[in-house]
Amino acid sequence: MIYDRVALIGLGLIASSMAHAMRAHGLAGTIVGHARSAETREAARQIGFVDEVFATAAETVQGADLVVLCVPVGAMGQVAAEIGPHLKPGATVTDVGSVKQAVIAAVAPHLPAGVHFVPGHPIAGTEHSGPYSGFAGLFRNRWWLLTPLPGGDPAATAQLRALCEAIGANVDEMEAEHHDLVLAVTSHTPHLIAYTMVGVADDLARVTDSEVVQYSAAGFRDFTRIAASDPTMWRDVFLTNKDATLEILGRFTEELFALQRAIRTGDGEMLFDYFTRTRAIRRGIIEAGQDTAAPDFGRSKAGR
Amino acid sequence: MIYDRVALIGLGLIASSMAHAMRAHGLAGTIVGHARSAETREAARQIGFVDEVFATAAETVQGADLVVLCVPVGAMGQVAAEIGPHLKPGATVTDVGSVKQAVIAAVAPHLPAGVHFVPGHPIAGTEHSGPYSGFAGLFRNRWWLLTPLPGGDPAATAQLRALCEAIGANVDEMEAEHHDLVLAVTSHTPHLIAYTMVGVADDLARVTDSEVVQYSAAGFRDFTRIAASDPTMWRDVFLTNKDATLEILGRFTEELFALQRAIRTGDGEMLFDYFTRTRAIRRGIIEAGQDTAAPDFGRSKAGR
Repeated sequence: MIYDRVALIGLGLIASSMAHAMRAHGLAGTIVGHARSAETREAARQIGFVDEVFATAAETVQGADLVVLCVPVGAMGQVAAEIGPHLKPGATVTDVGSVKQAVIAAVAPHLPAGVHFVPGHPIAGTEHSGPYSGFAGLFRNRWWLLTPLPGGDPAATAQLRALCEAIGANVDEMEAEHHDLVLAVTSHTPHLIAYTMVGVADDLARVTDSEVVQYSAAGFRDFTRIAASDPTMWRDVFLTNKDATLEILGRFTEELFALQRAIRTGDGEMLFDYFTRTRAIRRGIIEAGQDTAAPDFGRSKAGR
Repeated sequence: MIYDRVALIGLGLIASSMAHAMRAHGLAGTIVGHARSAETREAARQIGFVDEVFATAAETVQGADLVVLCVPVGAMGQVAAEIGPHLKPGATVTDVGSVKQAVIAAVAPHLPAGVHFVPGHPIAGTEHSGPYSGFAGLFRNRWWLLTPLPGGDPAATAQLRALCEAIGANVDEMEAEHHDLVLAVTSHTPHLIAYTMVGVADDLARVTDSEVVQYSAAGFRDFTRIAASDPTMWRDVFLTNKDATLEILGRFTEELFALQRAIRTGDGEMLFDYFTRTRAIRRGIIEAGQDTAAPDFGRSKAGR
């Protein structure tokens, strides 16, 4: 057992999966939860993945050793303000948001001295959401990034890390600013680009009577899948990870214009060299995957 | 049987799959083939998917009722020049290139009067290539677009269409210029964008010691797969479908800048509305797939 009492605020895919996983591995003495929606609370009671469901976040966190904020990034600040006065001294608070600097700015001011805030981001998910979508294996071999605050308590971080690893995740620690930049490259900007390309196609599709959808080749079909992600979540991501996304977008358009110029001028050598270089990245991912057999994409565990 | 004698020029994935499929359905009396590489010719003999392999394209096409050009787009013109004088009067010539206007410009001038040229493009493929990669089911429920020339022989087109349909493809006819625009949207521009994003990530990856690859989330991982495509083939596509690609790229950057401005100014409503609109396209694809059970993405067969 790693924590005596764990409180989950928000009871969707991530929270319900954490509850299932903690139970499966005997990592928490008692698990309690709260969701803003009465329907979600009732579903959580029916499924039974927590020991008790409370109607308010304030009640939920009382006496908890670990509080996990599993609400949308835009709602973190409000929840923190609500639970702040009710947190147990010495408790650890973490979150599961896709953006870290904005969450820290919204949450940290509301937490009293003596409570340890260790922001986190499990890079895990499925196309489903809600309390019925959770399963114990969601985090297995997925990354869980922690962005501890400068001057924070190393013991609190170590304990949270032990929990994440016990439910199957690979944990890494980094600064919040760095996290937001890496995610801007690997996730946020690709999503924006996919949304854009699908939007362009949509305009053309109206002209050509859905031919674009009919003949959607591999490239476009992958883009539509990415661009089908939840609009609310992604709006919040772009609004809260604005600086990093704009920086990567700037680099992207710079490179795109270079390739566009090569097409216009017929510079086949430049195109060939560029495409050869990008192909190597994919090979690196595949080879790393083959080396480790687990989907951790080249992460060497030797140095940990 | 649809053709007495079929000649395949180039013996890679598409040609070998066509041979397997024609044999499986008894669609050709005799199938002969040629590849520029002696190694590929020997492999084709070993596998035995054609009745005879010739060392030159000129010998191969002699007496053939259907000649299929299965070589890279950049090599089509040279092959056409070589076989032109040896084609049987009344024969049909087709090709399988991803770009149609450039192939027509390269091939048509070399074909004698009395030979019917019906350009084509099967939207089918796998990550594998070469004579060993072919299989009879490659074209099943995939699109095969034909772009007959104005004033061409409708009977020649109908016969080729019958062959494509007999090996499982859904056939549609359109103008070559329109084909190149639709493919620029659904395939060519998405590939260029994916190449670009992976290139940007590669730059950053060097700085951050491969973190970008390690933490590659769904968006980026899909991009790396697209960007792993064959550099030679894609160089040729962009150089030969230059006008349509540049037009779509222009629309793309226009839209991207609008989204970028919305992020910069914090216009969450604009972002939410845009993402909601693009999500609907994906739903359309999925719903269409559910309706028909076959992967034809919304193609209504009622009107055919």
